[in-house]
Amino acid sequence: MASPVRVGLIGFGTIGTGVLRLLRAHRADVARRAGRPIDIVAIADLDHRTDRGIKPAPARFTKDALSVIEDPAIPLIIELIGGYEPARRFVLAAIRAGKDVVTANKALLAVHGDEIVAAAEARGVRLGFEASVGGGIPILRTLKEGLAGDRTAAVYGIVNGTCNHILTTMTREGRTFGDVLADAQRLGLAEADPSTDVDGVDSAHKLALLTTLAFNVVPRFADIPTEGIRRIEPADIGFARELGYTIKLLAIAKDGRDAIEARVHPTMIPNGHLLADVGGNFNAIFVRGVALGPTMYYGQGAGSMPTATAVVADLIAAVRDRAIGTGVRVPPWGVPHRALRPLRVRPLADLESEYYLRFMALDQPGVLARIAGILGRADISIASVIQKDRRAGTTVPLVLRTHRARERNLARALREIGRLRVVRGRPVSIRIEDRLG
Amino acid sequence: MASPVRVGLIGFGTIGTGVLRLLRAHRADVARRAGRPIDIVAIADLDHRTDRGIKPAPARFTKDALSVIEDPAIPLIIELIGGYEPARRFVLAAIRAGKDVVTANKALLAVHGDEIVAAAEARGVRLGFEASVGGGIPILRTLKEGLAGDRTAAVYGIVNGTCNHILTTMTREGRTFGDVLADAQRLGLAEADPSTDVDGVDSAHKLALLTTLAFNVVPRFADIPTEGIRRIEPADIGFARELGYTIKLLAIAKDGRDAIEARVHPTMIPNGHLLADVGGNFNAIFVRGVALGPTMYYGQGAGSMPTATAVVADLIAAVRDRAIGTGVRVPPWGVPHRALRPLRVRPLADLESEYYLRFMALDQPGVLARIAGILGRADISIASVIQKDRRAGTTVPLVLRTHRARERNLARALREIGRLRVVRGRPVSIRIEDRLG
Repeated sequence: MASPVRVGLIGFGTIGTGVLRLLRAHRADVARRAGRPIDIVAIADLDHRTDRGIKPAPARFTKDALSVIEDPAIPLIIELIGGYEPARRFVLAAIRAGKDVVTANKALLAVHGDEIVAAAEARGVRLGFEASVGGGIPILRTLKEGLAGDRTAAVYGIVNGTCNHILTTMTREGRTFGDVLADAQRLGLAEADPSTDVDGVDSAHKLALLTTLAFNVVPRFADIPTEGIRRIEPADIGFARELGYTIKLLAIAKDGRDAIEARVHPTMIPNGHLLADVGGNFNAIFVRGVALGPTMYYGQGAGSMPTATAVVADLIAAVRDRAIGTGVRVPPWGVPHRALRPLRVRPLADLESEYYLRFMALDQPGVLARIAGILGRADISIASVIQKDRRAGTTVPLVLRTHRARERNLARALREIGRLRVVRGRPVSIRIEDRLG
Repeated sequence: MASPVRVGLIGFGTIGTGVLRLLRAHRADVARRAGRPIDIVAIADLDHRTDRGIKPAPARFTKDALSVIEDPAIPLIIELIGGYEPARRFVLAAIRAGKDVVTANKALLAVHGDEIVAAAEARGVRLGFEASVGGGIPILRTLKEGLAGDRTAAVYGIVNGTCNHILTTMTREGRTFGDVLADAQRLGLAEADPSTDVDGVDSAHKLALLTTLAFNVVPRFADIPTEGIRRIEPADIGFARELGYTIKLLAIAKDGRDAIEARVHPTMIPNGHLLADVGGNFNAIFVRGVALGPTMYYGQGAGSMPTATAVVADLIAAVRDRAIGTGVRVPPWGVPHRALRPLRVRPLADLESEYYLRFMALDQPGVLARIAGILGRADISIASVIQKDRRAGTTVPLVLRTHRARERNLARALREIGRLRVVRGRPVSIRIEDRLG
């Protein structure tokens, strides 16, 4: 057996602890697969107080990340501190020093990926980021290698476990968003500041990466329309069920000739579709290929040990590459930077979709006619209507399901309907995806 | 762009046609990913008459496979004729000639894999066989690379689309096996001679490969207990539903210290488990990892184009390898031949499982007591009982669900119960898997 590969770990938090644990517990298995043992020989973290349940030693434990990154005896750096800075600086420093880099940092790659990947390609080093999307589900490797024989038409991902846990619980127990979120925070299933998760930002970070690997397009992160789950109400979950749908926060990307679609929003998907059955804090990515048709990849999207398995898979891949040559076998984005397609994200206003609409309207004759009239003038046709709980003089929910319509037209119609005196509160609209494949 | 890689195709049937079609339709995409175009320059098949809807030209079309295999201008051979011979001879000839080989031949690899892999390793050539299991689902690559950071504890696969179609239709429509099979044959969803599929042999071929890649153990194919779906009756599907289960033909492999488990048989799995929702002719492989927990991979397990995408993914992988070095990056079995674990398959008699049992018994007092007595003496305890349709003097189904019991004891008890005068016909037993993960 060849000598061990010496690895430096920057960031000794939840995932970093898992990686150290995994590499030590599975050392012989890893060596059998990689051809050489893989040892973490240096760890950098500012926090030297917290008891992580595993001792860094014999690895050197330091607060000075650059001393690890620039150690000439270390050819491979794992970045697990997360966020933009100093992660970006550290990753670029490692690349400049000619080190292979493995990271779980979706925010960094979604926003600064282009700069980092260009640097890695220019320096001829490997950049692994399997752990950044879908936790332990090997979805990035699958898009870059497993599905390389096909063209991908569309990707639908449940990629945020916190949101999926909240929606699953709301659906099962009929409780409100705020109530379930508070519980999830108590249980450690949601952060104290949950906005990155529940506002869809984390899903959009992951979607940016899925989009790049699926379509060889790097979307501008700011161009990705993103809507979270704060406004989902039990009433809408109930009506969805009545119409045969389940509400999931989906990260959706679709290929196109002159632009791609990439967006994150609550979506009604048909009950009976496999994605509708993905419950709790699990993740799943559904991919529709032109020749292959539908495939789906399911598993734990977060957590110390699941995410650590993806980091270790990237380490093994890098060591396997190095064993046979000095070149980079698969570029970070799946194709060389110069082969990326120069497409943009289609603006939200240009999207077409079917919609679920809910208005709280005074129960008076003619209300449906007035709403239907406004929708009709905006070129939106109605597929079905649910009117319930008729009690004269009070507001009742009026639920409509539209045929395929243009987002721009819908927004205009909803503004007009929202101004009607017989309509109370803000109209609710949720996109429906009926034909996932 | 570098010059095209010249590929020879042996076997121009359903999948071969799909591969040619795909390589031509996606030539630019393939080139962008592989770094070079990939062209099929020679095709060998004995049948030059059938119109396949795509012309071999400009590829040379011959009946002489060896002339393609031995063409010094062709570094890569695709074998798609299936079966043991002459496929084995052709694959070994290609390996000896120093060619990389891509194949979809699960039967060949399940039975002669050890010989072929040893030859490929000795000669230092690549052997890709992603298309042999799960059609277009990249499950083998996932086990070898995506999940390389973890230890796999168990694999549960729905890997035969014909069986899954038949069981799904029987479950949905309450029809008999023979009836649904006849329909499937008319629709081209089952072969004229369906035995390889419905007797579980095809699933066992695929299980042998899954077992090797998951656990680094090469099972003796003849040691894999294999039972098909011919004996499944609508009554058992109905009782399964009543008990909260769906019946699937599962290929099951579990790791162990002194032996591994590997077996194919109809299995009751809990409704609500994702595998229970895999319908029609789809495949899915559910993997339980020690650190990662459950993951699942779902898609089309057969068909010309889906399977062709897996062949092309293997071609691209081989070309990517060759671009950076001359060594083989990942050995065919995931680890070198010498690093395989020398474990055997646990004999059926030593297995432990929970069981669904159905007896057709005369409706007389004391029958349950006699059956329960025999089971008890065999160390099998009963978890629940369903007795229905009481009509004095006729036979009625008596359904039992056992706690965990040993297969050897169950077989003995069933023989004894089958000899009771109050029991008519052959007792039915179906294994239950409650804790897939």
